[in-house]
Amino acid sequence: MKSRWEKLEQKLSQKNLEAFILINNLDIFYFSGFWIEGVVLFTPQKKFLITSPMYQEVIKKSKNEWEIIICKNTLESELRSLSHKLNIKRCGFESNRFSFALYKKIKEKFQPQLVPCEKIVEKIRSIKDQEEINCIREAEKITASTFDYLKKLLSKEVTEKEMVRKAINYILNRADGLSFYPIVLFGPRTSLPHGHSTNQKLKDNQLVLIDIGAKVKGYCADMTRTFFWGEVPKKWEKIYNLVETLKKMAIENVKPGIKSSKIDKIIREKAKNEGYSENFLHGIGHGVGLEVHEQPFLNGSSNTILEEGMVITVEPGLYFAEEGGIRIEDMVLVTNQGGQVLL
Amino acid sequence: MKSRWEKLEQKLSQKNLEAFILINNLDIFYFSGFWIEGVVLFTPQKKFLITSPMYQEVIKKSKNEWEIIICKNTLESELRSLSHKLNIKRCGFESNRFSFALYKKIKEKFQPQLVPCEKIVEKIRSIKDQEEINCIREAEKITASTFDYLKKLLSKEVTEKEMVRKAINYILNRADGLSFYPIVLFGPRTSLPHGHSTNQKLKDNQLVLIDIGAKVKGYCADMTRTFFWGEVPKKWEKIYNLVETLKKMAIENVKPGIKSSKIDKIIREKAKNEGYSENFLHGIGHGVGLEVHEQPFLNGSSNTILEEGMVITVEPGLYFAEEGGIRIEDMVLVTNQGGQVLL
Repeated sequence: MKSRWEKLEQKLSQKNLEAFILINNLDIFYFSGFWIEGVVLFTPQKKFLITSPMYQEVIKKSKNEWEIIICKNTLESELRSLSHKLNIKRCGFESNRFSFALYKKIKEKFQPQLVPCEKIVEKIRSIKDQEEINCIREAEKITASTFDYLKKLLSKEVTEKEMVRKAINYILNRADGLSFYPIVLFGPRTSLPHGHSTNQKLKDNQLVLIDIGAKVKGYCADMTRTFFWGEVPKKWEKIYNLVETLKKMAIENVKPGIKSSKIDKIIREKAKNEGYSENFLHGIGHGVGLEVHEQPFLNGSSNTILEEGMVITVEPGLYFAEEGGIRIEDMVLVTNQGGQVLL
Repeated sequence: MKSRWEKLEQKLSQKNLEAFILINNLDIFYFSGFWIEGVVLFTPQKKFLITSPMYQEVIKKSKNEWEIIICKNTLESELRSLSHKLNIKRCGFESNRFSFALYKKIKEKFQPQLVPCEKIVEKIRSIKDQEEINCIREAEKITASTFDYLKKLLSKEVTEKEMVRKAINYILNRADGLSFYPIVLFGPRTSLPHGHSTNQKLKDNQLVLIDIGAKVKGYCADMTRTFFWGEVPKKWEKIYNLVETLKKMAIENVKPGIKSSKIDKIIREKAKNEGYSENFLHGIGHGVGLEVHEQPFLNGSSNTILEEGMVITVEPGLYFAEEGGIRIEDMVLVTNQGGQVLL
């Protein structure tokens, strides 16, 4: 925890800030270990957590250096009086986490200058330490074993929703939770990148797309596989092989120092050269950690430079409206030796 | 859908706005019927939906009066060029939905005046039409039947997490999804209002608290029951009866025209008179709809006036650290005849 604090303290010092406000519950967990809702006022000298009476028992139990304030009024008024007491002059906040309404509410009668900061905490969270990588790896292993289990359950007439329930049950028996609600799609419905599962039954010679993730100690996995059920037309074999090639190419390009948009561009270019520019409908990947989608994003408009310790997905997909689609997704750790598939 | 549009158009006219930006996916669903991510530019004359190529197939299939723009650049640049083309002068947005960063990003080079509005859409969504009430009622019925099922599964040595998995499986077999991740707590752990289920086993003579909700067509249910397993000390019987009384009192006070904070106050006063002011750790309830927690909130700081058609929870709870807690939660429809328990 201390090394996480140091990273934030360094940012504060760079930006000449005496304090920083955290309101996102995952950010609060990341810096405090508390799974609760509230507001943190983070200063290099001391860390304050303002929360509701609902959480007082949970907090009391933990041995922790934080100063806890059980909120008697509104969170913003507690924050106001605390920052006045500490005589803070410049206080930062994460501009992606604050709603415009919350910003206005806190700013009112707030003594310190309120300084918007872009993705400071998101950036810190994007570089994983060994403990975090272990959790993600364990989550990904459970996810991979879920695929082994689900493959055996595929049978004529099984519905997408039945497969979803089986996936949930299997994951919850082994992990702490789900990264997201599982996606299981059959046949032409595989062309919907974010399709919702239905009571559609599996028929002979169809594609099956499954996108699932287990969660371990708060950390997410995210994995997609596309299967052939029976004799699937030759066309799909060709597409499948191309998607596999795209995935391999993307992983080969993962290394510290590369712009995340560049990987997306290389893969998009390759898909275009093969005649599929219209079928590549989303970015090539995204960061994964406490959230299933977090920094860095690997798409055309992202300027993030990959760094050692980032964990990302690589998930090329080619989609053909009303016909079907193929997506294959792995999780990759950025190391000094390049991209290492997590499994 | 048209009557929803009319409500928003009326608000626009009151605030002298020519357009309104929606970015929340539930707000977009509410006004369009589309389950997708994107940005809506809503004008009385025409409704525009800007979204990613990922959703183009879903959108094409629906017969709808919306003008669809498949985003080639960033969402904000599409929004900018659209509003310039329409020559909009004043454009509203929901200040609770926009992050501060998004506000800044859209405002840059944006021709119209960008006007923050507080809870316009949230307010409209808080009044349910008949179709919405039917969905919520169905979700609540499935939730109630889940309790009948779970009660029979209680047995010595069953774990909290096993009960959670059973609950999920039962609900997903009958409904479209879960309103939230189920809470099942045994014994002293029932004192944690938002406790996470563990591998704790059920022992003789313990309290069992279960808080679950099914989702039907996007609409949530939310229901809590506390059970006695075996011979539970007399003390809890007294507390249980008091919580039941508090719930009844709260429901009796539900009617159009009453301030939501007043109901909270009446119940808090009663708990205080009985000697339990320190044990009432959260507000008396909240609105439910497409979100499991939405407007109106029934707590001390809420100024909302209850109106016919609102659907709220009534959920008094008394908690005793390290001993246990009792919460009972029903869903209530605000009608001209008073509060009607939804079941």
